[in-house]
Amino acid sequence: MTEASALDLPGDDLFGADNLPYGLFTDPGPHDARTTPDGRDAGQPRIGVRYGAYVLDAGAAATEFGSPHAELLREPLLNPLLAAGRPVWQAVRAELREWLTGGAERRAATARHLRPLAEVELRLPFEVADYVDFYSSEHHAANVGRIFRPGSDPLTPNWKHLPIGYHGRAGTVVVSGTPVVRPRGQRKPPTAEAPLFGPSTRLDIEAEVAFVVGAPSRLGEPVGQDAFRDHVFGVCLLNDWSARDLQAWEYVPLGPFLGKSFQTSVSPWITPVDALDAARTRPPARDFPLLPYLDDGDGAVAEPGGFDLRITVTLNGRRIAEPPFSSMYWTAQQQLAHLTVNGASLRTGDLYASGTVSGPEPDQLGSLLEVTEGKGPFLADGDEVTLSAWAPGPDGARIGLGEVTGRIEPSPGG
Amino acid sequence: MTEASALDLPGDDLFGADNLPYGLFTDPGPHDARTTPDGRDAGQPRIGVRYGAYVLDAGAAATEFGSPHAELLREPLLNPLLAAGRPVWQAVRAELREWLTGGAERRAATARHLRPLAEVELRLPFEVADYVDFYSSEHHAANVGRIFRPGSDPLTPNWKHLPIGYHGRAGTVVVSGTPVVRPRGQRKPPTAEAPLFGPSTRLDIEAEVAFVVGAPSRLGEPVGQDAFRDHVFGVCLLNDWSARDLQAWEYVPLGPFLGKSFQTSVSPWITPVDALDAARTRPPARDFPLLPYLDDGDGAVAEPGGFDLRITVTLNGRRIAEPPFSSMYWTAQQQLAHLTVNGASLRTGDLYASGTVSGPEPDQLGSLLEVTEGKGPFLADGDEVTLSAWAPGPDGARIGLGEVTGRIEPSPGG
Repeated sequence: MTEASALDLPGDDLFGADNLPYGLFTDPGPHDARTTPDGRDAGQPRIGVRYGAYVLDAGAAATEFGSPHAELLREPLLNPLLAAGRPVWQAVRAELREWLTGGAERRAATARHLRPLAEVELRLPFEVADYVDFYSSEHHAANVGRIFRPGSDPLTPNWKHLPIGYHGRAGTVVVSGTPVVRPRGQRKPPTAEAPLFGPSTRLDIEAEVAFVVGAPSRLGEPVGQDAFRDHVFGVCLLNDWSARDLQAWEYVPLGPFLGKSFQTSVSPWITPVDALDAARTRPPARDFPLLPYLDDGDGAVAEPGGFDLRITVTLNGRRIAEPPFSSMYWTAQQQLAHLTVNGASLRTGDLYASGTVSGPEPDQLGSLLEVTEGKGPFLADGDEVTLSAWAPGPDGARIGLGEVTGRIEPSPGG
Repeated sequence: MTEASALDLPGDDLFGADNLPYGLFTDPGPHDARTTPDGRDAGQPRIGVRYGAYVLDAGAAATEFGSPHAELLREPLLNPLLAAGRPVWQAVRAELREWLTGGAERRAATARHLRPLAEVELRLPFEVADYVDFYSSEHHAANVGRIFRPGSDPLTPNWKHLPIGYHGRAGTVVVSGTPVVRPRGQRKPPTAEAPLFGPSTRLDIEAEVAFVVGAPSRLGEPVGQDAFRDHVFGVCLLNDWSARDLQAWEYVPLGPFLGKSFQTSVSPWITPVDALDAARTRPPARDFPLLPYLDDGDGAVAEPGGFDLRITVTLNGRRIAEPPFSSMYWTAQQQLAHLTVNGASLRTGDLYASGTVSGPEPDQLGSLLEVTEGKGPFLADGDEVTLSAWAPGPDGARIGLGEVTGRIEPSPGG
């Protein structure tokens, strides 16, 4: 039971009524009853909506208020809501706003379904279908090219013609806060005759922005850039933990595998695409003409595909970089069009990430590989990394993305 | 209602009592009743076990015979059975054998739950979690290296130290018989100034063997080679359709993406690992010492990791290749150990494939790229490709893998 005053947020709160990100929470108990007052298993995850420092039990509120979407909001994960499609996402969002900012009586009733964030446990909010990771920052790709392939052109010849990407491991996508156990594997230092085996000595981060697919598509039917809002539900931060030594030895010719697949961490909160209208921005000028399915020049797309998200990377509480998402060469609309242009279908829960976000300035680099010009130091056991971000909202407000954090634990057995 | 004589198979049937592969079928109807005699929704997929040219309705038989596994066998997909683990797999297999080969009364009762294969529709039998594709034939990798990277060593320096692999798109894994729509995408012929867009002109096959994970593992806990039988449920054939022109342009530096992700076809039947005991074989001699987690030399593993599967590739009914799976350099046990050595967890429904199976002889090549030395012709619209395979079983019997077939349809819009 929370006072209605919990709903009085300061105007600059990152999680106000213009944001309303979705997550999944459990009540760590002890449970006095085996069911919640609205009849659900008390130990089961519940859909929550973040408001300030509180979580709204969306299913409980929807039940009390007789929402037509109560059944969707009482599910133990977000996938059914994601699958419901944009008209439902919009209708639920309008309901949430009314519950949180409506008349005094409604707000008092809503407040009774708020839980302080500190009292709940947050879970991975949706079941990940396929996970794709792109490579869409020109600054990052060029920096990495210089480090990994010295003497060659830093960008491969295809880079400005298509958003390069690859599939990652969906089963090891975890929620923020999950410890990151240092992976073990093969690495081959240039001076070694044969590969060595052991804990990674070059464990790194990649600060990324990820997009969550809601509405599926059919096999054989490409999804164009302008269908982005019909298919993509929301946005979160993602840390693509990377073992650079494993990756460097394994990645030719089929790409990253074990250097990435041990763990990928995401925000517990999915901010709806509709909350980022004021953050839409034009991407950088294109250096080559693009094929029609990727063209986003004047008149080619309904709205600009960039998002003005300002990311902060902190290492053990110290701010080490502020990568600007607006500097990405390829947009999420283009990535969606590219990944389906061959007829590949989308499923509810597909997750696709931007690739490391790095800007042109030395304090805008989204990986330690770049920050240290390939030399390290990389992450030590005990290090904690947090990604956070905000975007401009309506009327000068700010929209926050949920933080993603992880702490490095030593490899078992050293 | 089928006569008990349906159970009298010739001794050389590829789908006899030593095989017993699992699949999923639906009854195309029309349904006289909305429920099956044992109370399930008549339109819902049912678990079937192939026996000769028949499908045993495993859930109906289990219900009639009071099996303790009736609930698992009445599920509308294989995942719960996969998740149940090896002791259950063994117990169910023993029950099936008894139902099909026991006393006359039991066999007469079992026969009533058989359906002719021609009367049912086969579905993708399990929900694919993550899909990984390896690259484990030395002959294939060397052939491709010579074609794609002329002038370099055909094998990359890492190739004989680890089984190279990458993640593919799980959401576009389809069951045998699903039409293959020719994908469209970017390609850049050497003489073109800029990439072109259109239907792939170099559509190819890859004849592969795939392994289906049943029992999951925990994040952070590697699965060793000797745990193969505890985690891997079964084996099927897989055709990794590949658009060579899309792949050649996109794959540097992060590996194959749209050149593969449009569709991957698998057998409708999953043959249990336990059915292939007589097919176990030692892989080829290793040219370099292997790190302990991959070592499969004398005494290092409990049983040899190879499987003597003889694959046949037919194009429009004409036999074009007979790739021997026994020639693979890396085994499925090693692939499992490698993909988890960094701590990556397994999920029920994970699927991992061998990579193209090619042997040393000109009539043993598992892709048209190799058969035609890179020059083509590749697949034309209307072409139909079928993979089949058999392995030695007990007492001279043969164990068949379910065929995987697909027919090329033109790109929509040409």
